[in-house]
Amino acid sequence: MTNPVLVEVLRGDLVESAHRGAVIVVDGDGKTVFAAGDADQPVFPRSAVKAIQALPFVESGAADAYGFGDRELALACASHSGEPAHAELANAMLARAGLGPDALECGAHWPSNHAATIALARSGASPSALHNNCSGKHSAFVCTCRHLGIAHLGYVRPEHRFQQMIRETMEAVTGAPHNETNRGTDGCSIPTFAVPLQNLARGFARMVTGNGLDAERAKAARRLMSACMAEPFQVAGTDRADTELMQAAPGRIFVKVGAEGVFCAAVPELGLGIALKCDDGAGRAAEAMIAAVLARLLAGDEALSSTLAKAARPVLKNWNGIEVASLRPTSAFA
Amino acid sequence: MTNPVLVEVLRGDLVESAHRGAVIVVDGDGKTVFAAGDADQPVFPRSAVKAIQALPFVESGAADAYGFGDRELALACASHSGEPAHAELANAMLARAGLGPDALECGAHWPSNHAATIALARSGASPSALHNNCSGKHSAFVCTCRHLGIAHLGYVRPEHRFQQMIRETMEAVTGAPHNETNRGTDGCSIPTFAVPLQNLARGFARMVTGNGLDAERAKAARRLMSACMAEPFQVAGTDRADTELMQAAPGRIFVKVGAEGVFCAAVPELGLGIALKCDDGAGRAAEAMIAAVLARLLAGDEALSSTLAKAARPVLKNWNGIEVASLRPTSAFA
Repeated sequence: MTNPVLVEVLRGDLVESAHRGAVIVVDGDGKTVFAAGDADQPVFPRSAVKAIQALPFVESGAADAYGFGDRELALACASHSGEPAHAELANAMLARAGLGPDALECGAHWPSNHAATIALARSGASPSALHNNCSGKHSAFVCTCRHLGIAHLGYVRPEHRFQQMIRETMEAVTGAPHNETNRGTDGCSIPTFAVPLQNLARGFARMVTGNGLDAERAKAARRLMSACMAEPFQVAGTDRADTELMQAAPGRIFVKVGAEGVFCAAVPELGLGIALKCDDGAGRAAEAMIAAVLARLLAGDEALSSTLAKAARPVLKNWNGIEVASLRPTSAFA
Repeated sequence: MTNPVLVEVLRGDLVESAHRGAVIVVDGDGKTVFAAGDADQPVFPRSAVKAIQALPFVESGAADAYGFGDRELALACASHSGEPAHAELANAMLARAGLGPDALECGAHWPSNHAATIALARSGASPSALHNNCSGKHSAFVCTCRHLGIAHLGYVRPEHRFQQMIRETMEAVTGAPHNETNRGTDGCSIPTFAVPLQNLARGFARMVTGNGLDAERAKAARRLMSACMAEPFQVAGTDRADTELMQAAPGRIFVKVGAEGVFCAAVPELGLGIALKCDDGAGRAAEAMIAAVLARLLAGDEALSSTLAKAARPVLKNWNGIEVASLRPTSAFA
């Protein structure tokens, strides 16, 4: 099937560009509450499932053994902007386990936050793996290996014992097979697996309700999501959608972006899991989609729903600060 | 109609994202030589029509009066990366007309070239309007005003005499009306008008063949396009598609990108004009599309066609330099 247009980009009064996609919302029993587009399509969730990938970090006892709190747990689930607070916290996590940035195998890149890049350049420094948007997740990975007595070298490779643990966890939570036939490599070098969009939504419904998870895992899941909701800056950063959406309703919305136009989310008070994919991979459209679907689900809270609906219609200004374009969710969300 | 998928993004062996769009190729008589998708759809050409917008700069005699050659003419048609050579040349153009960067009304932004941004930050400087990707076009605009004795202040506004000249030129070359009903504002603050994609292709077929243009305009058009093909670095910059495609066949391919997934192009030896739009506005896909259509049109030159086909299938590496994804034009180009 051809997915519907979910977001339009307007210039003046005219549609300049359009984004298609699919979105699905399911409850703790796996029942579909809302859907648009093809929810059976396999989607690489990329970073949108970091909270699931972080389960072994908590379940193994590593997080407690190193004395980590909400900030560290949130950073373990983050795709952060490489701002100083993010890089410093990742470094501190590694130090607790007696490790340094050289243990990270995610590669280095300049901060995605422009001001952080300019400040880093002006300081004369260069970016390290700590500035990689995945450095929190990777720090949690090597801390977990250290705690479990697993040699961390090569921890990004599919055949490494730790990646096998992650894969088993992903299969158990999403209910979808993860094997060589649906495997790709993510930007940070770990495996990523394409699974039906509905399995991602089901996974987050399980994470937020605990349905279908054993008590230990349900507790770890809620602890990780609560940490993200308590420390939304650590999950993303300045002017980032994840951070702003979670700040809009503290403790009531969990959202996590993934590259190529993916979002996974959950609404604890409704016991719902959400997954969406913008067909063309555009982050701007995926951000409008997640805000639009949250506005619909939380329509009972008029003030919050209005804030979310506004976030779904960002206005774009040009270099002179003139409003020249805007995004608009389509009637698919009505 | 729903436009076809023209480019797929692969991760491993699986399609991760897909880009729809429309492309049309027409000859000097306005006959369609190749088309995929809806060529009647109105498209904001954005910066893809800078060579048409630069006609008054040449036709007025301004370019000659200030002694400008290929480099300055190419920069007048450019969406450059803000590298030092671009900013310096724009500044030199302004100086010839006794003006400075403060005459530019395009706004300032950091160079799109990352290395140039880092170097500028490390030097302790901040970006000026000279680093704006449109600074060459705007420098040509104010030089033309100066030469014609038109007060340049407010030259970006739709009602300014100079923008009226640009609009009349655009209407004459594309054959499409430009008025309040199809007007938007571009990133650099000048008006941009949504016109059917086929009119953009026709306009560039006229530019490259001279058909339907008076002798003076035909000469100016060829001179501008020749300048771009002779100085492709000035048109874009390091690692940019426009520059690399024009360098692949010096003097034989003219291409110009526009924001939101647009390309206009021309092939002088075939007398063809090309226009395309990626529905979702993605530059990565538009680049693959223009390379794919050029590879098809120039199939008679096997070596060149092979180079272009390769450019249409870029491989994406992650932060560790591992090949993780690639783009692939679909059978629509076969």
